[in-house]
Amino acid sequence: MQKPDSAADRAITDIADVRKHNMRAILRVVEQSGQASRADIARACGLSQPTVCSAVDGLIEAGLLSVAGEGSSTGGRPPIMLELNSDSVFAVGVDLGGTNLRVGLADLAGTIVARCEWPSPGKLGTKGEAAVSYVARAIRDTVTDSGLDPSRMGAIGLGAPGVTDPSTGVVSIAPALGWQNTPVASMLRDEFGVPVRVDNDVNAAAMAELHYGYGQELRDFVFVSIGTGIGSGIVIDGRLHRGASGAAGEIGYMVIDHTWSGSTTYDFGCFESMAAAGAIAAMAAEALGVDDALPEDLFRAAGSGHRAAGQAVKAIADRIAAAFSCIAALIDPQAIVIGGGISGAGEVLLEPVRERLAQLSPFAPELRASRLGTDAGLVGAAVLGIEEIKERALQSI
Amino acid sequence: MQKPDSAADRAITDIADVRKHNMRAILRVVEQSGQASRADIARACGLSQPTVCSAVDGLIEAGLLSVAGEGSSTGGRPPIMLELNSDSVFAVGVDLGGTNLRVGLADLAGTIVARCEWPSPGKLGTKGEAAVSYVARAIRDTVTDSGLDPSRMGAIGLGAPGVTDPSTGVVSIAPALGWQNTPVASMLRDEFGVPVRVDNDVNAAAMAELHYGYGQELRDFVFVSIGTGIGSGIVIDGRLHRGASGAAGEIGYMVIDHTWSGSTTYDFGCFESMAAAGAIAAMAAEALGVDDALPEDLFRAAGSGHRAAGQAVKAIADRIAAAFSCIAALIDPQAIVIGGGISGAGEVLLEPVRERLAQLSPFAPELRASRLGTDAGLVGAAVLGIEEIKERALQSI
Repeated sequence: MQKPDSAADRAITDIADVRKHNMRAILRVVEQSGQASRADIARACGLSQPTVCSAVDGLIEAGLLSVAGEGSSTGGRPPIMLELNSDSVFAVGVDLGGTNLRVGLADLAGTIVARCEWPSPGKLGTKGEAAVSYVARAIRDTVTDSGLDPSRMGAIGLGAPGVTDPSTGVVSIAPALGWQNTPVASMLRDEFGVPVRVDNDVNAAAMAELHYGYGQELRDFVFVSIGTGIGSGIVIDGRLHRGASGAAGEIGYMVIDHTWSGSTTYDFGCFESMAAAGAIAAMAAEALGVDDALPEDLFRAAGSGHRAAGQAVKAIADRIAAAFSCIAALIDPQAIVIGGGISGAGEVLLEPVRERLAQLSPFAPELRASRLGTDAGLVGAAVLGIEEIKERALQSI
Repeated sequence: MQKPDSAADRAITDIADVRKHNMRAILRVVEQSGQASRADIARACGLSQPTVCSAVDGLIEAGLLSVAGEGSSTGGRPPIMLELNSDSVFAVGVDLGGTNLRVGLADLAGTIVARCEWPSPGKLGTKGEAAVSYVARAIRDTVTDSGLDPSRMGAIGLGAPGVTDPSTGVVSIAPALGWQNTPVASMLRDEFGVPVRVDNDVNAAAMAELHYGYGQELRDFVFVSIGTGIGSGIVIDGRLHRGASGAAGEIGYMVIDHTWSGSTTYDFGCFESMAAAGAIAAMAAEALGVDDALPEDLFRAAGSGHRAAGQAVKAIADRIAAAFSCIAALIDPQAIVIGGGISGAGEVLLEPVRERLAQLSPFAPELRASRLGTDAGLVGAAVLGIEEIKERALQSI
């Protein structure tokens, strides 16, 4: 006898699942509203008052909601307003890039209340246990400097620049760090005694954009990060699409020149080789007629009317637009949201990409610069920790 | 007060929804098993016996399930076996291509029991009302020839080669038919008095592959059709991904050459211009040194060792592999399933695509020829009708 195996086909059997599902919906409504009464929640979720009251009791007991005070009355007894119990614990977010290591402490509402920055262990050539010890020291220093009570640390979230398995917490390949099969989650868990959630850094940034950036208006978007490498996080109907082998969104491997002769296995892919920071820096040096230049030098020159720089930016825009036309044709998102170092170029780069994409795609999505800017990665890492805290609390009810 | 707006956030409020959801799971189990007892179903779905008995009663009453007889006993009373009531009604499937119009009559189990083929109205230059009358006559002729009782026609499904809106049944653009904003669903509904469901032809073929082809083993795949045009249907976790504007999977518009100078708006896109039947025919003529050649001539010559033909096939394979690398990098499906006329080339084409893709993608999905072959489009159209019949029956309970 065959079992129906997709989520769509699966029978709904567990009342506890329905209750938890509804609790998540309630949390989201309170989070989006700031404060809400039980009646507000019932109306917004389409649930009965008794169902809401029971779920709210559970959420208060789990430490996720708290009473904010009395609301304004419309005649009868003033309603009791609820809010996210955001200061009860804090989450640690670790944005582990190839260049920098950034640590932020966030409350449950996703606000970064303290932060610090160090050189990346990858840049220092530190690997394995020594690299994780280095990250642990950075976390400890950030907590000490913040003055927060270390015993209120609820979870750690870490975004890594490579292929990671969130279910095991192992980073299988991260070339920018020189890591292979590093069980960073269990190593940090042993160190701090709190749950640790690890994910790909761009996936984490996409979740940050969903929760605290454009997610209020967009439920279907692709977050593209262009920096030392290129990656993306794909959000479909408010959920991250991970793919059959967890590699969905690794758009650095897109081929935008069918005659391309590079080989990609575990190395930079075609799109990445042609449009990430290294390629832009080389084009910058050539256009500006110097030995060494940074991408920002090129964008600045193009912005002030330098002709060769303008042509180089146009060529880069054509490459990015080719890749974006593939995103549009396949996924058809509401928008492509651009983050990562190169997004700092702003409209000097976005405008020609937008123009070229309109020529190439009959259904061109909107292009936007990330609302969280260069903080997307750090907030994303913190979101991993916040989600871990919420899920643990819901499981405990 | 903001409502949570994604499916993930929405509260589950309606017990009737849960019952229908479970009925769909039961139908799928019976369909996949051929025959099943109530106890078999309860086990496969993880539902209680009373829940299953009540749902099965509803499904029998709605005409979707019927009693097949007694099963073999394991000691006690022999169990009553249930099966899909597949002959109660039939669905009409209309596969409306740019070259051919094919009509098939299918039972509820998706078996085509009668079929006919005509030149496409698009090929004849017939548009608007005249074209829909032509399709209606083809349907009527097929039913008459089949000897089936016309009063048992349950629904019509139609796959159109263009952008269609299944919720309104309007084909907004179908260049191969010369159609624009044609409300084909309501026109056929007026004609036959049965519900009509319309969708993009490749989306329909992907659903056919899901229900009656590789779907038993694959829940995440991209069905790519290469013929006069190129399109795809994206299946994620057993569901079709449609995109924000219903244009997801229109991969003919992918840009696999960033310097491409064509313009695509409402015309053939870059990938289509470089790898669909027209482009292959031109390459065939050149490689074979003749004025006119068909794609199959090229593949046959390459298969028998013709050197220039082999090089041309390699060039086509590189173009297809570039597009597939983009599918792999973005979606990361379990497999890419290839259908459409060009898929008839078989391994002569698939092998070099597979080889090139392995070079380009660290996470290359499996490549397979469609299990339904050239019938995928027709079965897909019939599936649209079958789904319509099932959903109507479930709504009536």
